[in-house]
Amino acid sequence: MLNKATQETVAAGGTAAAPQDIAATMRVLGTSARKAARKLATATTAQKNAALQAMADAIRAATPEILAANARDIEAMKANGQTAAYLDRGTLTEERIEAIAKSLEDIGNLPDPVGQVIAEWDRPNGLHIERVRTPLGVVGVIYESRPNVTADAGALCLKAGNAVILRGGSDTFHSNRAIHAALERGLVAAGLPKEAIQIVPVADRAAVGEMLKGLDGTIDVIIPRGGKSLVARVQAEARVPVFAHLEGICHLFIDKAADLDMAIDVTANAKMRRTGVCGALETLLVDRSVADTHLVPICKALMDRGCEIRGDEEVRARLAEARPASEDDWRTEYLDAILAVRVVDGLDTAIDHIETYGSHHTDGIVTDDPKAAESFFQNVDSAILLHNASTQFADGGEFGMGGEIGIATGRMHARGPVGLEQLTSFKYRVRGSGQMRP
Amino acid sequence: MLNKATQETVAAGGTAAAPQDIAATMRVLGTSARKAARKLATATTAQKNAALQAMADAIRAATPEILAANARDIEAMKANGQTAAYLDRGTLTEERIEAIAKSLEDIGNLPDPVGQVIAEWDRPNGLHIERVRTPLGVVGVIYESRPNVTADAGALCLKAGNAVILRGGSDTFHSNRAIHAALERGLVAAGLPKEAIQIVPVADRAAVGEMLKGLDGTIDVIIPRGGKSLVARVQAEARVPVFAHLEGICHLFIDKAADLDMAIDVTANAKMRRTGVCGALETLLVDRSVADTHLVPICKALMDRGCEIRGDEEVRARLAEARPASEDDWRTEYLDAILAVRVVDGLDTAIDHIETYGSHHTDGIVTDDPKAAESFFQNVDSAILLHNASTQFADGGEFGMGGEIGIATGRMHARGPVGLEQLTSFKYRVRGSGQMRP
Repeated sequence: MLNKATQETVAAGGTAAAPQDIAATMRVLGTSARKAARKLATATTAQKNAALQAMADAIRAATPEILAANARDIEAMKANGQTAAYLDRGTLTEERIEAIAKSLEDIGNLPDPVGQVIAEWDRPNGLHIERVRTPLGVVGVIYESRPNVTADAGALCLKAGNAVILRGGSDTFHSNRAIHAALERGLVAAGLPKEAIQIVPVADRAAVGEMLKGLDGTIDVIIPRGGKSLVARVQAEARVPVFAHLEGICHLFIDKAADLDMAIDVTANAKMRRTGVCGALETLLVDRSVADTHLVPICKALMDRGCEIRGDEEVRARLAEARPASEDDWRTEYLDAILAVRVVDGLDTAIDHIETYGSHHTDGIVTDDPKAAESFFQNVDSAILLHNASTQFADGGEFGMGGEIGIATGRMHARGPVGLEQLTSFKYRVRGSGQMRP
Repeated sequence: MLNKATQETVAAGGTAAAPQDIAATMRVLGTSARKAARKLATATTAQKNAALQAMADAIRAATPEILAANARDIEAMKANGQTAAYLDRGTLTEERIEAIAKSLEDIGNLPDPVGQVIAEWDRPNGLHIERVRTPLGVVGVIYESRPNVTADAGALCLKAGNAVILRGGSDTFHSNRAIHAALERGLVAAGLPKEAIQIVPVADRAAVGEMLKGLDGTIDVIIPRGGKSLVARVQAEARVPVFAHLEGICHLFIDKAADLDMAIDVTANAKMRRTGVCGALETLLVDRSVADTHLVPICKALMDRGCEIRGDEEVRARLAEARPASEDDWRTEYLDAILAVRVVDGLDTAIDHIETYGSHHTDGIVTDDPKAAESFFQNVDSAILLHNASTQFADGGEFGMGGEIGIATGRMHARGPVGLEQLTSFKYRVRGSGQMRP
């Protein structure tokens, strides 16, 4: 009888493999990636951009194969009774494939971070010191069933001079492999090692476990892209650094000096522009001083847009339509048209609430009082803090980074949007004229 | 019968504790540190500097107690038959205590990294984005028997706004505790939480294991300071990020365009200034083109200074006094007056040797050819690269960082000297005027 992991492999069209075979397969991926990373580290910007263009061309040329592979995945997903929303995320069309190719070209147009001098200074003894960006090395990306991530993550890592090992969701196994095959052709056409972008060739989940152990030190960082359960597993099991956010319980505080119209607009955009993104608002905090003037108009504007309001006693006393909020609501990332609303006793109480229940992702304040904004900026320990702007700006593209591979809430290395710069490390170059240390 | 860990605790004057008690003790340290870190994050520069001054004053005032505690440690070390060199490292004198106090004042005079705006830019929609330094959070420092680290590490972490949990070597348990007691008095005198700098109150090694597990997520990073076996254990077991270098197998390459006098001076300084530091030269690579002119004078200069030379066949053909080098010698950090020397076929072979045998710590080239230096800088993947300067400049103080807590060879977050800046993270502050995301 097949075990669960093997069943999954077979269902996804792979061949059943024993755990030791998977470990061996993954070790080969790791060693090849490390070798490719060394070559990529000294690849020129022109070489990397040529590869990105060749990858885009190869994706376009492979449209029929990619669509055929995707049809196979979709059929299996339908047979497994997946929801319409899930099927939509996994479905590729000619337009979506063109968008993938275009995105590769866009990444080609971004400035190359590698070799940038981040800082330089002279020492009294005449030494000149430069801190210069270098690639990180080998990145492992573990993602759920969005085939475009195969190309996006591969391209961002390549541009930053890193080798990448991709492990996509098993539901889009064939789509991911077809896209990856095109990327590989682009790399080869541009004279870069095809091992610069590798994809795990088995759908077996044991492969994820091997990646999380770091493949004998060959993986430098793991980036998970997907839902909370994926990220939680990665954070719990990874023996290498992880760039991730577990959830985005984003807050907006309506200060006593908030302009009402701005508060309505910013709240509505933060909550309802898209409810399923990590920068979507989940909890609204309203200063008691303006609860009587601001709370109801803001909540009504949201209800008009189809949002359910869950409030504390103070909110429900002012807004009969509000459902009661429980302690759980303050800790919930709805990713849906639901908003938790609480009346608080001023800025400090709002900050306490955010530090108690928040996820250190993105939090904002609406106020015309610069001092209140400064205090909020100083005292809230989140990756992204906003003053008078929608929390949905929490995005590498919106930050002008030209793209992101995710958003991190950890404090090490990368925090906030993880773009090209965050995918690099640095080294010191010291120039002397025979200096000896006394 | 007592187990080994308990025996150690008792020998060090602590009370024997069951493993579950140690875990509980350590958890309390973690929770207190996290609480203190939140307060430190918003402490002003003046508050932190006042605390550093008060700590320096308290250290000076506590000189008799510190000397008495140290005498107790030294007596136990002598009874255990420790070497003279080991005893010297662990011994405190009035002068050394004054140096510790002075070092605290020096750290007070360094610029405060917290709140520094590292980058800022405007977006077309009018959003102004700042990346600003914040503390990292809670640092765990695990060190061997150098009591001055107690004060140095505590002070550097404090200045960067971090809480720290210190775990010093059990051989200087009492000295560390006496120094720590003075630091605590300084913190309290300046109105900062005394939990900002905590020391593990038991000498039991199980405490280290608990720290490496991260104390329920309360420790953000571990910094080991000590020999290779300590660092290796920390790197193998830590479930949190580690800033460290396992070893410094530092190379110097004498290029064919190297000036002979400079090559002699720089090599002699790199090897012999101090042989026991991590930036000390361990392997010399000489370009075959200058082997006949440069190799013997450089090696003779080292031998005159008491250095043993271990060479490959090519070296021994030119220098009869050289002992034969084995494969192991290329992988050895001697930390002693011994140098491995090899003749290589040009720059690329030198780079290959360094990438094969090196430790990515510090490597240098001596050459008058800027192109050779550029190629070396580009192709050697080490934290610190030097051109025409001694490898012994691998030091935060020499880099102008004003002090360091160690040197890191990892690629994540901190690389090279770990000074105040490297002990910080960052967050984004975004200022708008009601912007909504389209």
